[in-house]
Amino acid sequence: MAVYEIKPEFYNYVFSPYLEPAAKINPGDTVVFHTEDAFEGRINSVDVKPKEALKDANFLNPQTGPVYINGAEPGDTLVCKIDSIEFTRDWAVSAIMEYFGGLQSNDITKTLQQPLEEKVYMWKSLEDGKYFRNEEIGVTIPATPFCGTMATAPKLEAISALAPGKFGGNMDVPDTKPGNILYLPIYNEGGLFYIGDVHAAQGEGELCGVALEISAKVTVTFDIIKGKTIKWPRIESPDRIMSVGSAKPMEDAARISYADLIEWMVDDYGFKKMDAYQLLSQVGELYVGNMVDIVYSLCASIDKKYLKQDK
Amino acid sequence: MAVYEIKPEFYNYVFSPYLEPAAKINPGDTVVFHTEDAFEGRINSVDVKPKEALKDANFLNPQTGPVYINGAEPGDTLVCKIDSIEFTRDWAVSAIMEYFGGLQSNDITKTLQQPLEEKVYMWKSLEDGKYFRNEEIGVTIPATPFCGTMATAPKLEAISALAPGKFGGNMDVPDTKPGNILYLPIYNEGGLFYIGDVHAAQGEGELCGVALEISAKVTVTFDIIKGKTIKWPRIESPDRIMSVGSAKPMEDAARISYADLIEWMVDDYGFKKMDAYQLLSQVGELYVGNMVDIVYSLCASIDKKYLKQDK
Amino acid sequence: MAVYEIKPEFYNYVFSPYLEPAAKINPGDTVVFHTEDAFEGRINSVDVKPKEALKDANFLNPQTGPVYINGAEPGDTLVCKIDSIEFTRDWAVSAIMEYFGGLQSNDITKTLQQPLEEKVYMWKSLEDGKYFRNEEIGVTIPATPFCGTMATAPKLEAISALAPGKFGGNMDVPDTKPGNILYLPIYNEGGLFYIGDVHAAQGEGELCGVALEISAKVTVTFDIIKGKTIKWPRIESPDRIMSVGSAKPMEDAARISYADLIEWMVDDYGFKKMDAYQLLSQVGELYVGNMVDIVYSLCASIDKKYLKQDK
Amino acid sequence: MAVYEIKPEFYNYVFSPYLEPAAKINPGDTVVFHTEDAFEGRINSVDVKPKEALKDANFLNPQTGPVYINGAEPGDTLVCKIDSIEFTRDWAVSAIMEYFGGLQSNDITKTLQQPLEEKVYMWKSLEDGKYFRNEEIGVTIPATPFCGTMATAPKLEAISALAPGKFGGNMDVPDTKPGNILYLPIYNEGGLFYIGDVHAAQGEGELCGVALEISAKVTVTFDIIKGKTIKWPRIESPDRIMSVGSAKPMEDAARISYADLIEWMVDDYGFKKMDAYQLLSQVGELYVGNMVDIVYSLCASIDKKYLKQDK
Repeated sequence: MAVYEIKPEFYNYVFSPYLEPAAKINPGDTVVFHTEDAFEGRINSVDVKPKEALKDANFLNPQTGPVYINGAEPGDTLVCKIDSIEFTRDWAVSAIMEYFGGLQSNDITKTLQQPLEEKVYMWKSLEDGKYFRNEEIGVTIPATPFCGTMATAPKLEAISALAPGKFGGNMDVPDTKPGNILYLPIYNEGGLFYIGDVHAAQGEGELCGVALEISAKVTVTFDIIKGKTIKWPRIESPDRIMSVGSAKPMEDAARISYADLIEWMVDDYGFKKMDAYQLLSQVGELYVGNMVDIVYSLCASIDKKYLKQDK
Repeated sequence: MAVYEIKPEFYNYVFSPYLEPAAKINPGDTVVFHTEDAFEGRINSVDVKPKEALKDANFLNPQTGPVYINGAEPGDTLVCKIDSIEFTRDWAVSAIMEYFGGLQSNDITKTLQQPLEEKVYMWKSLEDGKYFRNEEIGVTIPATPFCGTMATAPKLEAISALAPGKFGGNMDVPDTKPGNILYLPIYNEGGLFYIGDVHAAQGEGELCGVALEISAKVTVTFDIIKGKTIKWPRIESPDRIMSVGSAKPMEDAARISYADLIEWMVDDYGFKKMDAYQLLSQVGELYVGNMVDIVYSLCASIDKKYLKQDK
Repeated sequence: MAVYEIKPEFYNYVFSPYLEPAAKINPGDTVVFHTEDAFEGRINSVDVKPKEALKDANFLNPQTGPVYINGAEPGDTLVCKIDSIEFTRDWAVSAIMEYFGGLQSNDITKTLQQPLEEKVYMWKSLEDGKYFRNEEIGVTIPATPFCGTMATAPKLEAISALAPGKFGGNMDVPDTKPGNILYLPIYNEGGLFYIGDVHAAQGEGELCGVALEISAKVTVTFDIIKGKTIKWPRIESPDRIMSVGSAKPMEDAARISYADLIEWMVDDYGFKKMDAYQLLSQVGELYVGNMVDIVYSLCASIDKKYLKQDK
Repeated sequence: MAVYEIKPEFYNYVFSPYLEPAAKINPGDTVVFHTEDAFEGRINSVDVKPKEALKDANFLNPQTGPVYINGAEPGDTLVCKIDSIEFTRDWAVSAIMEYFGGLQSNDITKTLQQPLEEKVYMWKSLEDGKYFRNEEIGVTIPATPFCGTMATAPKLEAISALAPGKFGGNMDVPDTKPGNILYLPIYNEGGLFYIGDVHAAQGEGELCGVALEISAKVTVTFDIIKGKTIKWPRIESPDRIMSVGSAKPMEDAARISYADLIEWMVDDYGFKKMDAYQLLSQVGELYVGNMVDIVYSLCASIDKKYLKQDK
């Protein structure tokens, strides 16, 4: 089981089957990914004007990868065990940006109103990244690091790194965190795994559209489940199984995530479909990951203790 | 501080300013409400066919009330401290119904497909209502009792008891539970409070549209905040403050709930608006209460420990 | 066949089963309704500030009625033949209002942005109401008068006159115009018909939320189809049959209107359901009536020449 | 001004900047495109089972192109004058397919219900393609040919040929027809124009998801407007200007199309923004192109006679 380290000299901005692999690895191997923040470090002080600073950025949300996993074939499932996230700087940044975020109109939910005024929030790392503090608000919050973006390349399409979808992508779901396993559909030979957009912390919904953006080293161990086909990203924690649906309007993301969780319970845990539907109606959980990206991501889950039927 | 008990001989099916009060009370008084389940007890065995059983029911979700609170005037806020919920029978019921629920088309999200087959799930109370068990699935779950429906009468309108809205109503948000306080806008003299639809348990989203429906006695202590006007229902637990937005599409419910929570943080906790927006982006929580009713209800919240700015 | 004239001294602001009839008539009778504009005449000059002017208005969109049609019973269909619309003043008014309209956030699609600036547009009647001219824009448009709002009272509920729904209501669909017939479901004894909100002209979508609002006399002849139950409003012109669906998100309004049109083709014109679905896929029309009200209204239609199958 | 003919040996299934041009032409040149139907001819009889027939089709909606227009650069606008559409066979086909179409759940608007039963409708060309007849329904309809799909390659992304968007794509808007001009944003050197999916007829909404699919020869004359940047597809007919917005939920497509039309009126016709907003509120038209594709497409328009302000 080899360990690789990928420190890119340049980044990618699409989940694409057309890009050269940054590395080829075997199932069981571990990769340490260096990731840049969503702005590629361009917003680093309260004096920066985001619109100005991003003018020369053709694209946002830089991705490290893709990683080619030997033996991965369309129809298999990629297993991504998130081992650890280590911040590589002592600050994180968030910002109010123009025509972006959950409580602002944008290019799609279009209005004629003026945008909100830009504003940068700097968050300082405390106790070696255990906490983050914003002096202006006067608040300290615990770090809850996770990867905003993890994806396999779609089939035929090359999709913006700002979008979530069946392939994973920019889901911004806080459960893609150390200790958990992300399962992704494989559409291409080698799977072609992309990663980026580490958040030091993020609320459910990623309300203003920008979490505590930070650069990091993310360690992931990969495996493949041959012949196992999934349709949407799935997450497993020590206690829960979860499905992530991404769509607009938001109710479609809700429908997808719960429907996929039912399918999981039927296929792997022996539930009858209607029984799984019934049980999730009583003990399922459903939170909003993002309400700000190209499409919205919701995460439906159930405690593993309910997965064993005693009859 | 008086204690009243309301055991209705008949129920109401609208949140209406046009109905006679079931009781008139003073701020500080406590009321014990007897509530029927959403089907008024008509579905009580796996052999019942819901469509048949509900044929003679003109309306669903029977409400106890309204209670007139002396001194309540339009523009005030009603404080509903949920003291306790006591089940009045030893079984709860859920069901798959035709053209209803989160994973089925309905009269509004209309398709030409056949409905799902009806199916009743009986859940038996264990350990005096601490747990509920469905033998067919072979699963036992803890009771998490709450009131699916609590409302004040709207202004001028009379709204179906199946609908949530600014007035509260059929929110199906599991946080309207004992130990928590629900705040509701007051639109009419006396407030006119309605309650019903107790759930012995319910997952987030109320996926199939029917939780563990049960009859109960709910004890609520009322108060009024004179001159305090709120726009949407708010909930306070020992640890968190929460706002409930109800709308379609679901993203609008998300927008409403977070926007109202910002307003709360600004008005009562001294935050600047953009700072509240920023802080909720990093530590806010947002879950789906219902994805099955007339409009969807989402609940946004923040831990009280972040409400004190130290600067 | 009698002719009645209703010139209200006060107006209603809900479609309600709880209000006293303004008149009781027989099937076949004709009623001349005097209607006020949606602002009850409060906005009558470019110098008026809408927010100020509407401060003392508790409610908007005043309704004339209800009319009780003798013999109408729940489950019947009300036939409203729109005979004519005569303007009762020589100007119409539109306005940009705060937090209202299709290209502005509002209380439900909520953002933190500032509203658009208020602005009143006065439109002057030309050639006795054949045309309307706005001097500021420098444009003259033909009058296309219709009733924005026509409704029967809902069952049990009393619904704001700003809302469209199964009962008709504030649909803002330009096809409720002279020469056409509107069919409405009847939920209460007597039907209880409401009317208001005449528009001298309106684009599809009613984009800014305010059409050419004007006071008028509307002449309607009523009939009842006993035992014929419809679920949503239907319109018949000399050339087309149309169904109006009202819902959010807008795709649900589209689904409803086409699904109801299929039902109409099946029930009254002998089509097989899938054949109607197929035919509408090739020759159906679907426009947006309003994209600004409580829920959106879409109108699906088919040319009558395709309703006769020649085989 | 040269004339080219492109008769592909193979088709493309993405709008992609990564594919080799099928031809390089100059502004002013004319191209005759041979297009296949959306199923590539696989569904050609009522006895075909669509699911079976499409099993070996990796992708749907084959595209002819891309065409590289010399001199086209990012930020320019591509002018596509649709000269003519000539059918290349004497039948068109539509079908009810499983989990697809406006009145059926699908992979995104997910339910647990069974799909509709598959059914193929064959439409026979009459009078040399002037009319089409389905014997089973017993109906004859006039041909109204247009290109369902016309696109430029997106920037960096490669997008499925089933999707509409800012780049045009699978809009299924009946106004991309002979005699009209389609304007498309240019994102790449050469523009990279794709075309396909000719419909012999289609209703607004493309209700069942399948129009009268047919193979054809489409003649388009190209030009470039240097330095003119547009954000969304625009169409010009002899009488009207139109903007096409594509998004979910459908109200976002409505917002986009009208907002873009306002921008057009401001930039090219000298309107003040609020005056354009006002005028469209009174005379704008807004129909649904498709309610069945990856995102929905709506078309907002205004009669050219209102574009000249006389003041």
